[in-house]
Amino acid sequence: MTSHHGRHAVPTEQFPDLTHFFSPRRVAMVGATEDLGKFGGRCMRQMIDFGYTGALYPVNPKREQIFGLPCHTSIASLPDTPDHVGIVLPAHAVPAALEQCAERGVPFATVFSSGFGETGNDQGLADQRRILDIARAGNIRLMGPNCNGMVNFVNGFALTSTATIQGPRRPAGDIGVVSQSGGAGQVNIMWRAQQAGLGISYQVSCGNAADLDLVDYAAFMLESQATKVVLMLAERLADGDRLRALARRAAELDKPIIMVKVGRTEAGSKAAASHTGAVTGADGVCDAALRQMGIVRVDDCNELYETAMLLRQGRRPGGRRAAAMSISGGNLVMVADLGASLGIEWPSYSEQTCLKLAESLPGFGSANNPTDLTAAAIGQRDAYKNAAQTILQDPAVDILIPVLTINSAADVRAIAEVSAGSDKPVAVLWTGCASNDAALTPEVLVAEGLAVYRDALPCLKAVHRAMQYAEFRRRLSSPEAVRPKNIDAAAARHLLDEADGPLSEYRSKALLQHYGLPVTAETLVLSAGDAVAAASRIDGPVALKIQSPDIPHKTEAGAMRLDVTGERAVTAAYDAVIAAAKAYRPDARIEGVLVQEMIADAQEIFVGISHDATFGPVLTLGLGGIYVEVLKDVVFRLAPLTPDEARRALGELRAFKLLEGVRGKPAADVDALVDCLVRVSWLAIDLGGRIAELDINPLCVLPKGRGARVVDALVIPHRTAD
Amino acid sequence: MTSHHGRHAVPTEQFPDLTHFFSPRRVAMVGATEDLGKFGGRCMRQMIDFGYTGALYPVNPKREQIFGLPCHTSIASLPDTPDHVGIVLPAHAVPAALEQCAERGVPFATVFSSGFGETGNDQGLADQRRILDIARAGNIRLMGPNCNGMVNFVNGFALTSTATIQGPRRPAGDIGVVSQSGGAGQVNIMWRAQQAGLGISYQVSCGNAADLDLVDYAAFMLESQATKVVLMLAERLADGDRLRALARRAAELDKPIIMVKVGRTEAGSKAAASHTGAVTGADGVCDAALRQMGIVRVDDCNELYETAMLLRQGRRPGGRRAAAMSISGGNLVMVADLGASLGIEWPSYSEQTCLKLAESLPGFGSANNPTDLTAAAIGQRDAYKNAAQTILQDPAVDILIPVLTINSAADVRAIAEVSAGSDKPVAVLWTGCASNDAALTPEVLVAEGLAVYRDALPCLKAVHRAMQYAEFRRRLSSPEAVRPKNIDAAAARHLLDEADGPLSEYRSKALLQHYGLPVTAETLVLSAGDAVAAASRIDGPVALKIQSPDIPHKTEAGAMRLDVTGERAVTAAYDAVIAAAKAYRPDARIEGVLVQEMIADAQEIFVGISHDATFGPVLTLGLGGIYVEVLKDVVFRLAPLTPDEARRALGELRAFKLLEGVRGKPAADVDALVDCLVRVSWLAIDLGGRIAELDINPLCVLPKGRGARVVDALVIPHRTAD
Repeated sequence: MTSHHGRHAVPTEQFPDLTHFFSPRRVAMVGATEDLGKFGGRCMRQMIDFGYTGALYPVNPKREQIFGLPCHTSIASLPDTPDHVGIVLPAHAVPAALEQCAERGVPFATVFSSGFGETGNDQGLADQRRILDIARAGNIRLMGPNCNGMVNFVNGFALTSTATIQGPRRPAGDIGVVSQSGGAGQVNIMWRAQQAGLGISYQVSCGNAADLDLVDYAAFMLESQATKVVLMLAERLADGDRLRALARRAAELDKPIIMVKVGRTEAGSKAAASHTGAVTGADGVCDAALRQMGIVRVDDCNELYETAMLLRQGRRPGGRRAAAMSISGGNLVMVADLGASLGIEWPSYSEQTCLKLAESLPGFGSANNPTDLTAAAIGQRDAYKNAAQTILQDPAVDILIPVLTINSAADVRAIAEVSAGSDKPVAVLWTGCASNDAALTPEVLVAEGLAVYRDALPCLKAVHRAMQYAEFRRRLSSPEAVRPKNIDAAAARHLLDEADGPLSEYRSKALLQHYGLPVTAETLVLSAGDAVAAASRIDGPVALKIQSPDIPHKTEAGAMRLDVTGERAVTAAYDAVIAAAKAYRPDARIEGVLVQEMIADAQEIFVGISHDATFGPVLTLGLGGIYVEVLKDVVFRLAPLTPDEARRALGELRAFKLLEGVRGKPAADVDALVDCLVRVSWLAIDLGGRIAELDINPLCVLPKGRGARVVDALVIPHRTAD
Repeated sequence: MTSHHGRHAVPTEQFPDLTHFFSPRRVAMVGATEDLGKFGGRCMRQMIDFGYTGALYPVNPKREQIFGLPCHTSIASLPDTPDHVGIVLPAHAVPAALEQCAERGVPFATVFSSGFGETGNDQGLADQRRILDIARAGNIRLMGPNCNGMVNFVNGFALTSTATIQGPRRPAGDIGVVSQSGGAGQVNIMWRAQQAGLGISYQVSCGNAADLDLVDYAAFMLESQATKVVLMLAERLADGDRLRALARRAAELDKPIIMVKVGRTEAGSKAAASHTGAVTGADGVCDAALRQMGIVRVDDCNELYETAMLLRQGRRPGGRRAAAMSISGGNLVMVADLGASLGIEWPSYSEQTCLKLAESLPGFGSANNPTDLTAAAIGQRDAYKNAAQTILQDPAVDILIPVLTINSAADVRAIAEVSAGSDKPVAVLWTGCASNDAALTPEVLVAEGLAVYRDALPCLKAVHRAMQYAEFRRRLSSPEAVRPKNIDAAAARHLLDEADGPLSEYRSKALLQHYGLPVTAETLVLSAGDAVAAASRIDGPVALKIQSPDIPHKTEAGAMRLDVTGERAVTAAYDAVIAAAKAYRPDARIEGVLVQEMIADAQEIFVGISHDATFGPVLTLGLGGIYVEVLKDVVFRLAPLTPDEARRALGELRAFKLLEGVRGKPAADVDALVDCLVRVSWLAIDLGGRIAELDINPLCVLPKGRGARVVDALVIPHRTAD
């Protein structure tokens, strides 16, 4: 597991050096042809047309020449070792070609061929495993199989069949694009971003990602000078730790990663599985993990580059306070409403701003925000420029949204000028065109570096995401997660070592106590007499609960009694609990009966640790009972948590207000709860790999100042120790 | 109030005949000029350029001719009475011009001038009232003030300054556009829809809507042969009853109304108020009301015409089951995932479909839905067409989404052909371009009648909305709301007549009983002795509650006791309740003390009637306690409700599952609850206008088969009787 401490360490050693993958000095294409109806023909033709200037070796034993280049019979017969070999052969012929690459010492190969893991059948999976083994044994780093290759606009190298790069080569830009898919990655993202006026640095469609995966390509792009933002379309995220390392590096470089992660639904996961063999984890966990990492998640491919328009500028909004201005009042109403529904605030301007706006716009009424410039601004020289500059200078404004409809080229240019010269971010909403210059389009402004949107909602979604990203960046400078005192990890580990099945409540709570969590006052007893004695030491009524590793769910077994008072009742309850346990499971190993204080006036909380296929140990929390079980009102977090992050997590619960005290109930001791959550998160860090499941249900949070108590808990270790 | 019975009556008498407003035989423009820098100049010029063929009279006492037309000194001096007069004068000069129009018998006038209600100040509001009075007195129907006029593409008449209609006149199409705003309506909707390949029939930007409002213009457009869909951008909906009549007419004609309604947030409402003086009601109510009426609500202007692309075809999906097909597996993964997250289903194909797909596509694997045609389909003659036709014939498929990226013109044309010939709706997602025909664009296909989307989310949102609209249409053929038996409206009305303030619980429940609602067993008593006698007739413990019109909130006053058992306890409780009431409000009029059965094992429900500024009496319902008060888990409905609609409303509650029985609790008697909701909805129909507020809190729903009981209720009549 990656250390969570090393936030400022550069974990580049985790990522391979892909310089000669993206920019090879010599390239071979196995399965090359001149037939443009075939994949190998299109790849060859495009590599040449795209302007590759290194050595290019077509390999095809049946040809003498391909596109005027001498053709070679095999990898073995090449005059020099290629940096990168493209393989376009039927699936069955791929292993032999890879073995030749290994013999020749080729460092990078791209297998375009399909018929591997994406088939989902045993043969396909075995074949994929085989080519991976060959690559590993031969020190080849592999792209694919079942992929559509890559494009490097920075150095002019393309190894792909995509029609999107035909025609004159588009200039390189500052946006990297990584996907498994060819069509979606190269058409929906790369080509469409270019159509919108953006430029691409590198693009990869890595298919099944048997070896090199999305994270490897993204890491290379992040490190390159050319790239300012990386866009990812992910059908699968294989390794949460490596993604975390990538995100950390992105944060250091202040180069945002924007991602579409499919698999929100079962239908999506199923479709992904049959496309590239991807298996996805729980989406709620993924969503929370990406947010914690500062990866900006969006919903659709166009939102990737639309968000990038604003984020690549590097200017971050200082808060959630936006201003908008326009001569179209109707647009301002839309913008105000949609913005507020996303959580964007529209602050009032300072007195100075209002005075300056009134000065520069005679006949202009009250300076509300959003600011209706009214017809007074039409045709008035510098009205747009002055208003925009005045508003941007207001300390209450974090970002400006000038709204254009059909405006003169001069007004459009004025807005462009203000945007380019501003320290604060500017997102332009331009729903129309320039009235007197058909060549002045949104795409032209985007190519100049502006963020220009055609519709209100995409504009405000991008603004909102820029605000969220800026909040993430501000959190980077807040204190790191600190291990709380009074943790005895060794003792806790010892309890797990001893277990050969689920831990009883008593042992589960002992484990939690080693992490400093407060538990109910309780005694494990082996006789009715001891039960009576234990009960007498506890104020008020008690609970009696069977303790057995073979009965993890006591309620189901009927082997517990609540609210028991008095000697006779305790004795009777002891006998009843033992009898119920024996009836439920005659061979159950009985550790004893737990005599426990009852907790009144508390808010019940559920806290759990579970294991996610991608991200490993994950914390789940929610209000106990129906809130978790029926309303599914839960939040997820990766460990460790700072107290601030724990508070944020609680604040995301719909039922959070219940903790603040409603309907005459006192506010709960949220500080104590936060401390518990932080401690459980460190337990997840230390022991998460050894725990299949940990449920604290309920954690009872008492009124403010009175702390919290673990009332019941269940720890299920992994079947195999690590 | 409009009759709710007359669903099949044509309420056209509610809407004025605007034929000569939209298509005047003679038009005058007061404040005309040749100066294109001025509003009146642009309006004149554009009317001429747009091809108006009727008589056009510029009115301006300072000119002899304008654009070659003889200029007139006043309305009075015109050779003939115009059907429609445009007024471009300073606000102070408008009343005199309108008076002239009235004298001359002009039926329609458009006041472009601003400075009226939208200013929000007393002067502006009074001035608007004054021009409205002049119009009413003179039988003039008025557009505006503070508006940007209208465009009629069907007959070639424009009365507006907008630059969006410059250049050759675009052909008329099947989409009507109504908004208050000029910029948003004419640029974001009309012009952008035209850019996307759609055609417009009529467009209106009606500003403050002092007289004619959005609904009037929309009604005209609906009735016109040319229009198939009406798009509305509404900052305010003034009259819920007239909107309902409009929606009913739209349903009869199967011409969908698609609407952006701003005012979701306070910021949006505030901005709308300062733009056109619009005051908006509660958004949750509006949202529910629009859904009940079958008005398709969308979020942004582009979604208006994007949804219209699909809805104007008239083919409605028979259910929620979609199919998608593509050679881009990545796009299919996106589409499957986003679709499922919106509630779209991806059914498996029939065996026959699978066989036919396999036949027509050799080398094609298993026929999943979404269907990856794989590279096998590239370049293969008729592969797209055959697959699309085969899938459309599958009875499990309600709508097809063919996904294109970069395809040959032949493949694009094949999809267009299948779409045009299909009985089922087809929504094309085309993220790229035609590889061999730059002139074949999405806009071309849209102009031919297809629904073509550039991105997955807008496509699926439109598909989802088409499904919702089809569901609304299917509900039209379900039984109408029927007044339940055992309603004594006269007796209920009498109770309201008697009241001079809030009704006590006892009287509130009596009113509900007249509507056939079951209430708790209870007796109103005036002495402790009577209380004991009443309690003895009730099984189990009782509640005692003060009954006073001056103490509507008994808990607050501490004037109730729950779970009281036994003679002595009842006597003590009676005295305590009386004492608490006197302490809380010494002058309170005491009707007595209610001795009431306690209801156990019930699910508490909140049912309320409140008054919405636009829609009148509105039903609110939710689960009682924290679900309503803290989690705000409520749904709204307009009355009357059918049992089906009541069930749908309950199903929209997040906490609905609690009614089905969870955590060992029995399922609640939902049938009894539904009957209560239907009855309350008829109470709202009959008496809603006389009730400021009605709260049933709680309505206790017992386990299945055991009915429901109104446990507490409060009716607050309107201060002034109607």
